[in-house]
Amino acid sequence: VTVTGPVTIGIDVGGTKILGLAVDSAGVVLAEEKAPTPRVLAPEGTGDSGGDAVIESIVDVAERLIDGLATDGDGRGRSERVSAVGVGVPGLVDDDGWLRFAPNLPGGEGLDVKGRLSQRLAPVKVVVDNDATCAVMGEWIYGAAAGASDAVMVTLGTGIGGGLIVNSAVARGALGFAGEIGHMVVDPAGPACPCGKRGCWERFASGSGLGRLAREAAHAGRLDEVLRAAGGDPEAVRAEDVTSAAAAGDERAQAVLEELGWWLALGLANLANILDPSVFVLGGGLVDALNLVIEPVRTAFDHLVEGRLGRPEVMISLAMLGERSGAVGAGVLARRDHRAAADRPD
Amino acid sequence: VTVTGPVTIGIDVGGTKILGLAVDSAGVVLAEEKAPTPRVLAPEGTGDSGGDAVIESIVDVAERLIDGLATDGDGRGRSERVSAVGVGVPGLVDDDGWLRFAPNLPGGEGLDVKGRLSQRLAPVKVVVDNDATCAVMGEWIYGAAAGASDAVMVTLGTGIGGGLIVNSAVARGALGFAGEIGHMVVDPAGPACPCGKRGCWERFASGSGLGRLAREAAHAGRLDEVLRAAGGDPEAVRAEDVTSAAAAGDERAQAVLEELGWWLALGLANLANILDPSVFVLGGGLVDALNLVIEPVRTAFDHLVEGRLGRPEVMISLAMLGERSGAVGAGVLARRDHRAAADRPD
Repeated sequence: VTVTGPVTIGIDVGGTKILGLAVDSAGVVLAEEKAPTPRVLAPEGTGDSGGDAVIESIVDVAERLIDGLATDGDGRGRSERVSAVGVGVPGLVDDDGWLRFAPNLPGGEGLDVKGRLSQRLAPVKVVVDNDATCAVMGEWIYGAAAGASDAVMVTLGTGIGGGLIVNSAVARGALGFAGEIGHMVVDPAGPACPCGKRGCWERFASGSGLGRLAREAAHAGRLDEVLRAAGGDPEAVRAEDVTSAAAAGDERAQAVLEELGWWLALGLANLANILDPSVFVLGGGLVDALNLVIEPVRTAFDHLVEGRLGRPEVMISLAMLGERSGAVGAGVLARRDHRAAADRPD
Repeated sequence: VTVTGPVTIGIDVGGTKILGLAVDSAGVVLAEEKAPTPRVLAPEGTGDSGGDAVIESIVDVAERLIDGLATDGDGRGRSERVSAVGVGVPGLVDDDGWLRFAPNLPGGEGLDVKGRLSQRLAPVKVVVDNDATCAVMGEWIYGAAAGASDAVMVTLGTGIGGGLIVNSAVARGALGFAGEIGHMVVDPAGPACPCGKRGCWERFASGSGLGRLAREAAHAGRLDEVLRAAGGDPEAVRAEDVTSAAAAGDERAQAVLEELGWWLALGLANLANILDPSVFVLGGGLVDALNLVIEPVRTAFDHLVEGRLGRPEVMISLAMLGERSGAVGAGVLARRDHRAAADRPD
């Protein structure tokens, strides 16, 4: 492998796994390491110690990548030196790299992610940002949003995350909290959300939203085969049961996926009205399933966006970097002046 | 009056009136002219001629201001020469100054506003932009959003318009259509909107939304005094009846205003989650009424925004330039390189 420019490490901390990549300045992935995300809760009254396990797992992934680059398989020294580590975490990250709100990362809330990782990984520089912001950076520099002045990354997993490109730069907002698109309320009488509100977009158009839509369909007798396969209890039906049945050709499962797709299109149309991007990039664990209903999503979007007759088509694309968007983007962020106007493409 | 720098004219084309101002480069208003917005519909099959009356009214306002500056009251010549005219129009304006979608301006849709005004007002330069984008520019340079890196202007009139400041620049989106925040769907089963969708935010939190909420309250027996004053027919109750009764101390009218305020807060919280502005500026004809319920709006917003405990307070301010935000901002846009990075404050 020919290595171009400085090597950085990008780490994407997801709800279930931590994915780390060593990336050179041309975006070439030199090495990959994974670890499960620790699911430990902070013991009562122990301050931020609940985040210890998360910090340790991130350090472990980073050190494995750093050590792997320092020596090749035969134990000989290699020349690649890591200049910085970028970390994307799920939740609201402030300008100082503290995680301020993290419903999907137990123990993460109130954690000084940047300070603690900097201490452990010194002298290597550490930058920390929201996971979807990292993902949009990856797709904007090397993927489906390349060249766009205005783009929105939508990461569809357990919840929905968002990363924004506005005026050819990453938009983080006044406090660094921009892009929390999953908590846009689209039905105030809708199901309760762990965030405390009702009817957030991610209650409908995420993996957990799909599970809910599927159980509703099972209760209503609209998912017979999936229900049988799940043992006959509608409450036992999971999102994965629907996506695998839909992939196998079950039309009723596809209909539930299309229902999810309608809600996805509704939120995308809202974001198009607000931000007018030229492209939406869909990423996250739900993307393979959405690929089955991407045409219905596009059709519904066209009906839901304002002034569609006078508006050129908005692209709805799947993430080109797949599950690596976030880690690649974290690596890109690590080699730049973090949170500076230098976000613009090289 | 001491005039600072070049004089520009800013014209705000509203649903009911056209407001024109001559403004110097310090933001001082030198003169004001008004005209009613023509409410003519294009005769069938006549192409874009339905917009003729609108163009003529804008030209009339501009020429009165230009002529007024050229001569003083005694008919003597004055030195102020107008360098450019900026015009804000309600609807989607593309990068070439065409109005592409304009549900609130009969005859305006498909109108080459910039081309036709440039022809009539030559050699004076003409720039055209969305009315709420003009308003946010006025408030950002001279008003309630001064100094903010990220701000959202919400104009509350018959509908809801939006202007966005992101990363210390006006955000227009890929096509110039950003900021159509009033057509964010917040209840897909809600009332039909002229845009073709259901449950758009402006069906709840605008002047027409207030009228609808008021008629619902009148039907339900929750607005007895307002209903009596309106002659006893719930369908005859208008938004203005509620705002004036609320201002006079009618608690039931104030309760309906608070209902409007809850919907306003819901949309503001959605926008805070997406864009993370440090300030919302509320403008438009409904602002005086909202002033009565601004504290309930702030309280509801605090309950609806994600992660409020880890998030510093977001300011919710009334427009400092009042009904002049849009015209002042159009004048600011006229003296700058239109739609350039030069949007940043002087």
